[in-house]
Amino acid sequence: MANNKVGQQTLKLNSHPKIIATASIVGPKEGEGPLKEYFDMVLQDDYFGEKSWEKAESKILRETVKLAVQKAGLTPEDIHYMLGGDLLNQIISASFAARELKIPFFGLYGACSTMAESLTLGSILIDGQYADYVVAVTSSHFSSAERQFRFPLEHGNQRPPTSQWTVTGSGAMVVASGGEGPCVTYVTPGRVIDLGIKDANNMGAAMAPAAAHTIVAHFRDTGFLQRDYDVIATGDLGKIGKDITQEMVLKEGYDISLVYTDCGIEVFSDDQDVNSGGSGCGCSAVVTCGYFYDRLVKGEIKRMLLVATGALLSPTSSQQGESIPGIAHAVTIESMSKGR
Amino acid sequence: MANNKVGQQTLKLNSHPKIIATASIVGPKEGEGPLKEYFDMVLQDDYFGEKSWEKAESKILRETVKLAVQKAGLTPEDIHYMLGGDLLNQIISASFAARELKIPFFGLYGACSTMAESLTLGSILIDGQYADYVVAVTSSHFSSAERQFRFPLEHGNQRPPTSQWTVTGSGAMVVASGGEGPCVTYVTPGRVIDLGIKDANNMGAAMAPAAAHTIVAHFRDTGFLQRDYDVIATGDLGKIGKDITQEMVLKEGYDISLVYTDCGIEVFSDDQDVNSGGSGCGCSAVVTCGYFYDRLVKGEIKRMLLVATGALLSPTSSQQGESIPGIAHAVTIESMSKGR
Repeated sequence: MANNKVGQQTLKLNSHPKIIATASIVGPKEGEGPLKEYFDMVLQDDYFGEKSWEKAESKILRETVKLAVQKAGLTPEDIHYMLGGDLLNQIISASFAARELKIPFFGLYGACSTMAESLTLGSILIDGQYADYVVAVTSSHFSSAERQFRFPLEHGNQRPPTSQWTVTGSGAMVVASGGEGPCVTYVTPGRVIDLGIKDANNMGAAMAPAAAHTIVAHFRDTGFLQRDYDVIATGDLGKIGKDITQEMVLKEGYDISLVYTDCGIEVFSDDQDVNSGGSGCGCSAVVTCGYFYDRLVKGEIKRMLLVATGALLSPTSSQQGESIPGIAHAVTIESMSKGR
Repeated sequence: MANNKVGQQTLKLNSHPKIIATASIVGPKEGEGPLKEYFDMVLQDDYFGEKSWEKAESKILRETVKLAVQKAGLTPEDIHYMLGGDLLNQIISASFAARELKIPFFGLYGACSTMAESLTLGSILIDGQYADYVVAVTSSHFSSAERQFRFPLEHGNQRPPTSQWTVTGSGAMVVASGGEGPCVTYVTPGRVIDLGIKDANNMGAAMAPAAAHTIVAHFRDTGFLQRDYDVIATGDLGKIGKDITQEMVLKEGYDISLVYTDCGIEVFSDDQDVNSGGSGCGCSAVVTCGYFYDRLVKGEIKRMLLVATGALLSPTSSQQGESIPGIAHAVTIESMSKGR
């Protein structure tokens, strides 16, 4: 029977899989934001020496994995499985990177929830003794995402105040059975939730109900409350989605206002003209692999809940009148430096 | 350490996760093929009462899951996690189905390898005691795939002899820690392999090297040979890809000619005008969930190796001059009725 299950949706990872290294590579705009010191590499231009944004995104993902593996003191041959995906159709960023890296590959699609989805499944592979080292990775790219999901940049369309700015960047984590590093102790995989939002320029509102549902499920399953966390970070809800999430969670009886932030708010500053904030798979990935990981390693954060959030729409589903379903997966990451 | 790992790429699932039920729903053309008696439902028309092929595909997937769960004597609330994906951009067939089914969801993208990818990860969740019941599922739809990957059907373009016919259909498996049914004993997740094929009308050739690589890795890791299997079935290589695979595996020293078939060859008959054979995520899904599962349950097959194969291209990657990377994941399924 499912001995590792806690409550309805949550799993307890008793062996405490360790995140022994992370890496993050970001684009020029992200490199001008408030977290710039925390990223391993800031690109000078978002083509990264490639002929298309799509090829650039795949290279960013690939180089991020290589860097994370190198920082772990390993080579790609040491990694048993790579779990990842991205926003591009048929996840070509991750698939083409996996081709070069030659690591057995599980392709995932969780839209912007992919950092938490890949970390969840990767940590389970480690916890269950199915691998000694895995890599969890995702990426996004402003320019490739805009032309795929909205309009080609050349179109110069206006962006409403609810819109968000897709982060150009990739974050990768090396998760291991041994070694040192912050560890994954609980995972709460999410359900697909859809309250009927149809505005593809208001993703934060579309994803907020899924974030709230997963946070409440996590609290209900584990018994944890706000006081048990130093940080609860959603993936890329932006300002509007964050407010909605906080209110929805409060309505279920849980106040998270003291510790709650959103990676989409952290990654850019107000003067960077990003309207409601950052978004994209890369958003929670670079903020977690860069900023939060550093603070976890230093012990400034003892325990955090990463709640990466994805909007599961496609241009086709929107054209056919569908609303935007959201999903959120939550992962508890604990600092290595405490006996809490 | 990774106690469940066997050799370089393979995992041994010691608890023998059971496939306690499967379901398959197919389109009209598949329902005229040689395996028609093995499918649970044959649709009268490929819109399935919906207004678009995409909505129809999502409904097919959803109804297949519901049917599999019902055949297992369960309800969707009993299923701890659903793992699945499909060929449509942003896997909307699976995501929108997961919205209705309300089961915590891991979205996957492995192109046509998804049946084996979802079965692999689902079986690991069961084996590691992370769930009591999971559903692994995938789908494809001829008409939605054609217009997304090639040309709108209205275009009436000609199909070269190497082309394949995307199966309209979905297959779902309920995997459980207890109960009765054929069981999953080994999984060999695959690497992304690309030998440079660029012809999107010759997917079989593009995916064959990945299939061969995974089959050889499986033999090398487990020590199994052709004689240990009653059936080795690749996913959707068709006639051309099957021949290439068999030859590539033979060059590595393994003869599989006596037990090797391809789901894309099984699903249609020669007079159905499908050129090189069937393809799509649904191909290996309906053939395995329908035909092979029935034979496993009856004990006519004692042990089979499902090697579902995916082509990880996108229209964008092809337009940008990229070749077609392939991936193949292998799963050993054993009949319940023997002590072999």
